[in-house]
Amino acid sequence: MALIVQKFGGTSVADVERIQAVALRVKGEVDAGNQVAVVVSAMAGVTNQLVDYVEQTGKLYDTQEYDVVVSSGEQVTSGLLALALQSIGVPARSWLGWQLPIKTSSAHAKARIEGIETEEILTSMKAGNVAVVPGFQGISQKNRVTTLGRGGSDTSAVALAAALGAERCDIYTDVNGVYTTDPRIVAKAKKLDKITYEEMLEMASVGAKVLQTRSVEVAMKHGVRVQVRSSFSDEPGTLVVNEDEIVEQELISGIAYSRDEAKITLVGVLDQPGIAAKIFGALADANINVDMIVQNVSADVNHAATDLTFTVTKADLERAVATVKAHAQDLGYKDLQSDPNVVKVSVIGVGMRSHAGIAQRMFQSLADKGINIQVISTSEIKVSVLIAEEYAELALRSLHTTYGLDGDE
Amino acid sequence: MALIVQKFGGTSVADVERIQAVALRVKGEVDAGNQVAVVVSAMAGVTNQLVDYVEQTGKLYDTQEYDVVVSSGEQVTSGLLALALQSIGVPARSWLGWQLPIKTSSAHAKARIEGIETEEILTSMKAGNVAVVPGFQGISQKNRVTTLGRGGSDTSAVALAAALGAERCDIYTDVNGVYTTDPRIVAKAKKLDKITYEEMLEMASVGAKVLQTRSVEVAMKHGVRVQVRSSFSDEPGTLVVNEDEIVEQELISGIAYSRDEAKITLVGVLDQPGIAAKIFGALADANINVDMIVQNVSADVNHAATDLTFTVTKADLERAVATVKAHAQDLGYKDLQSDPNVVKVSVIGVGMRSHAGIAQRMFQSLADKGINIQVISTSEIKVSVLIAEEYAELALRSLHTTYGLDGDE
Repeated sequence: MALIVQKFGGTSVADVERIQAVALRVKGEVDAGNQVAVVVSAMAGVTNQLVDYVEQTGKLYDTQEYDVVVSSGEQVTSGLLALALQSIGVPARSWLGWQLPIKTSSAHAKARIEGIETEEILTSMKAGNVAVVPGFQGISQKNRVTTLGRGGSDTSAVALAAALGAERCDIYTDVNGVYTTDPRIVAKAKKLDKITYEEMLEMASVGAKVLQTRSVEVAMKHGVRVQVRSSFSDEPGTLVVNEDEIVEQELISGIAYSRDEAKITLVGVLDQPGIAAKIFGALADANINVDMIVQNVSADVNHAATDLTFTVTKADLERAVATVKAHAQDLGYKDLQSDPNVVKVSVIGVGMRSHAGIAQRMFQSLADKGINIQVISTSEIKVSVLIAEEYAELALRSLHTTYGLDGDE
Repeated sequence: MALIVQKFGGTSVADVERIQAVALRVKGEVDAGNQVAVVVSAMAGVTNQLVDYVEQTGKLYDTQEYDVVVSSGEQVTSGLLALALQSIGVPARSWLGWQLPIKTSSAHAKARIEGIETEEILTSMKAGNVAVVPGFQGISQKNRVTTLGRGGSDTSAVALAAALGAERCDIYTDVNGVYTTDPRIVAKAKKLDKITYEEMLEMASVGAKVLQTRSVEVAMKHGVRVQVRSSFSDEPGTLVVNEDEIVEQELISGIAYSRDEAKITLVGVLDQPGIAAKIFGALADANINVDMIVQNVSADVNHAATDLTFTVTKADLERAVATVKAHAQDLGYKDLQSDPNVVKVSVIGVGMRSHAGIAQRMFQSLADKGINIQVISTSEIKVSVLIAEEYAELALRSLHTTYGLDGDE
């Protein structure tokens, strides 16, 4: 007998019929002799509706009350799933965030889980009840409702699995698992049986939105074995695990991409200490996240000026340009160029830590297709390049073949 | 400076625009120097939708989880109203049932409020914050979510007003107040300025659904001055108060009616001790509420048999007939007649306690119009008769004139 946490996303609980299908799936684990805790999202579309209501009251809103409103969707689903389970003979009860409680920081609308009380829920589970827990929600030290930010239910599930000492945390979603790349673009993309936490983090951060990034961080920290699998099929999914659980590590696990990038280049920036701090300080003050940053050594003879390129999300581009222009005098650049038509393509794999030449093969593969690389950035297990958006599909397919990832079409 | 509780029903908070209108109304009381606590219902239609979800999971459901699901609607509205208040510069915060907490019995789906902790909310109100409290919800001793039954938000408001020692509890609804009778039927119906708790209880129990019965009971018990008024106009409404607050008491306050009655007559029932107990015991076991009961002394020479008539709601008629028939042998009646086409008309007024002849005038007035009275039942401040449904409007208009209640058309 094992203790398992299952998490079902919004499309898996979109209506009562689907909630009943989820109940059957939960019953499967119970019938197999397991103790089960289930974490649920709000029914698809509900959270958006609630956020819309909040925004109708005013653009600048109190996130404490925002959390009161938007956390209600998961409450509804958890009650309904408990009822659906009971109606097929599976004893079940819901545990709301304040009932366990799930204690979080006070950063409303983006709170972090700090601890989960498990004594009562474990007693109930040991007595044979399935525990149904709404994702996304918790309470602050001041006893106010908090939420974890969009996609937070993944994190709720992983944190609950960690607190309960679960053997596995199964994240049911509308895809079959984690793929070597986007199968909608590359027909030969393969589902991965296993992937490391680190790789999963890089995949998530570059746009493969299968798991919320924070949930992978929590899983990694507590060593929770996470399985990403489909609510709509019985196939096994992808296990996200520690590196040492993966016997035959591939060199490269996947190719990810993000279209949500826009590029800004400042030409002829003064090459003085403190200039970069000024630019990115101003952007940070405006709450704009900067992703890639590239600054070359000064090309001119006097080392007096250099070019600086960085990327922001497409949504932030306009504000970022305005913010930089507002500091134009201070920064003393000659020209500002911006381009929203770029895509970031990343090659990811823990194997590259011990293998040279991964980046070179990437650059060569892109060059062979005549694709110009605008910006390069690397981490220990990732090489990312920024290229013109129109080359996205070509680049993905080409790199997928280059690193030997192609499966059956 | 006074402390006032305001309560807004589902149609008053049907969308964000209306919630913003409610916020302006609350601001009016705040600007007048009052401390305000607001109790809100779910947005119109939301609770029905949630109940429907629950019923889709199965006809026999766990009311503990029902409460988790259906209580969410009020949570949403309370967060939204707090936001709407803040956006017009009125400091406000929501207090969920579990946060105050509002302690109730464990009778899920029809819990009774047992106590409300007010220390924290009073501190917050004294500091200048409007308190927004979801109606309908509370928590049990076991820390589970409870609800008070449909219309329960009225009771939440009155109970909160009692706990806070409020000067007044204003119930905002979609009517202007309490009328002498249904103005849709009797054009000359007048709005009452004041009505006693006892009369209001009788009005509610015979179908004038302005306030939930339980809320009037709580108001009476704690002496809470309740005002029923419209969310959509600035006219004063009707004050529900103690008898001694009403200086010039009218003889009759109102004529109420209920179409939700069905009549069952058992002809030739054995006139033996215990027979009535058997009949109504069987109906109680089937969870069928019986309203009026009339049994005459035996008309036959041997006093061996009598006729028994009683009423149930129209929805229960079929089950009631089946229940009685199932005990036919035991009860030994000769015939069972049932009729759903009846209406109960009631004349209500605390004045009748000290005046004779009220009932006689009622019977005469109906006789003058050729209306046959099928069943009569009386209480200290009410005379009710059962008549054929087709005479309902005629009876109401005729009685309204008889007791001198007619106003301007």
